[in-house]
Amino acid sequence: MTTETPTSTEAAAPIPHDDYVHGYSVAETRRLGDQADTLAELLHAGTAYPAGSRVLEAGCGVGAQTVHLLAASPGVRLTAADLSAASLDQARARVAAQAPAADVTWHHGDLHRLPFPDGSFDHVFLCFVLEHLPDPAAGLAALRRVLRPGGTITVIEGDHGSAFFHPETPAARRTVDHLVGLQARAGGDGLLGRRLHPLLTEAGFTRVAVRPRTVYADDARPALVEGFTRRTFVAMVEAVRADALAAGLTSREDFDRGIAELRRAAEPGGTFHYTFFKAVAVRP
Amino acid sequence: MTTETPTSTEAAAPIPHDDYVHGYSVAETRRLGDQADTLAELLHAGTAYPAGSRVLEAGCGVGAQTVHLLAASPGVRLTAADLSAASLDQARARVAAQAPAADVTWHHGDLHRLPFPDGSFDHVFLCFVLEHLPDPAAGLAALRRVLRPGGTITVIEGDHGSAFFHPETPAARRTVDHLVGLQARAGGDGLLGRRLHPLLTEAGFTRVAVRPRTVYADDARPALVEGFTRRTFVAMVEAVRADALAAGLTSREDFDRGIAELRRAAEPGGTFHYTFFKAVAVRP
Repeated sequence: MTTETPTSTEAAAPIPHDDYVHGYSVAETRRLGDQADTLAELLHAGTAYPAGSRVLEAGCGVGAQTVHLLAASPGVRLTAADLSAASLDQARARVAAQAPAADVTWHHGDLHRLPFPDGSFDHVFLCFVLEHLPDPAAGLAALRRVLRPGGTITVIEGDHGSAFFHPETPAARRTVDHLVGLQARAGGDGLLGRRLHPLLTEAGFTRVAVRPRTVYADDARPALVEGFTRRTFVAMVEAVRADALAAGLTSREDFDRGIAELRRAAEPGGTFHYTFFKAVAVRP
Repeated sequence: MTTETPTSTEAAAPIPHDDYVHGYSVAETRRLGDQADTLAELLHAGTAYPAGSRVLEAGCGVGAQTVHLLAASPGVRLTAADLSAASLDQARARVAAQAPAADVTWHHGDLHRLPFPDGSFDHVFLCFVLEHLPDPAAGLAALRRVLRPGGTITVIEGDHGSAFFHPETPAARRTVDHLVGLQARAGGDGLLGRRLHPLLTEAGFTRVAVRPRTVYADDARPALVEGFTRRTFVAMVEAVRADALAAGLTSREDFDRGIAELRRAAEPGGTFHYTFFKAVAVRP
């Protein structure tokens, strides 16, 4: 593995990202790892690049998806880019531990201003990134530039509007809505999954194919209840508590009641449903 | 095909069903046929009963699912029951046209009070029925009685809370909520899909396995946009207009705006998502 220094001044000055809705805490890093491990099969199935392919992972974060990408595509030449140097450090450590032989170039920079020549990559992969961009179509267009004609882009996104559960209460629903509201205030879109087809089309990709990948957990699937409902989804909503209170969106009592009621979906007799969307499209 | 006269006085006096939320109009019968044909592969995949099996379809309605059940399970001995004599007449005509050789006994009666001895059937099938019952667990318990030990029950239900779309507007969302609200007033539950696992467990079934079956339509799937988004879902919501107005839930302007905005999900750049749930469980 090699580390690359950005060659463009723009790339060396990433846009501020203090408002990344999920934050950069240790608990959040653990949550992202739990989420990625629980969902790896669901999200990565069908994505396997030939050995030797030049692959860009845009917005690799702490490397939660990177290790799964590398496991499914041994022998690729991966460039993993992120806006956060601290996240890249964690990603590098994670890959060193789990895929020490992998060929990875680390790039600290903004995916809108990548310093790579046109058509540098055979494939681009990004997971849970577009939802945080103020203008996701512009981000996709920037990635299209570095993809060779005929190359593919694979995009995975969630959609918090796809979450429903049993029992479902107004307070529990409001806590989910607070996550969506805070993400919108930070310039993102927690409901992005449903927009993948029009966004990729707008950004100039062709053969856009979007497929839902649904997680459904009930008493028959205790590992999924624990790994997804409780440790991924409820944990993600719970993590915005301080921000939701600071923003005046809710009261301590209402938020805590909502979380307590949301947790019932992970208790006996509860059910939980969430849909991710996976898109594959081609640069013409 | 034979027609059976109910043998119990209770079964001969079905409970009133004037408040069936979707009504019994010609347009509704056509909608149910469109829906069943569009979704047949999605919903019926995996359900094939051995020839000679004694199968009960509880709540066969106009036979929209019956013809698909028979196509997937040639040679079964089917009993198809419904509360509405008029619907049974339509079901009989549909089956005569599409599966003239099928062995079907028609039963006019209430699934809560079937006149059949305990353990009369090897398999029970019901689709879009529980959502209309005031006490779905009681309905399931009544069906458990006529199922032999080791026999299976297969239940398919929607969940209107699973519907989300792009673009999504408050008025469009409210029209969907009106459908759910009217169904609740009629004693049903338009959000039943998410409750299948606890309901079947509560009704005494074992090995309960529930799987989501997701419909997702975008510009890449024009047949699904037309057959599902427009002619199934939007048509279903639109059909409650008069009832929603009569119930004072909405104004003419708001409802019509909501439908117009909902229709945009079926126009270029729009997307639509809906999840059905299919459960299979065993009578212990």
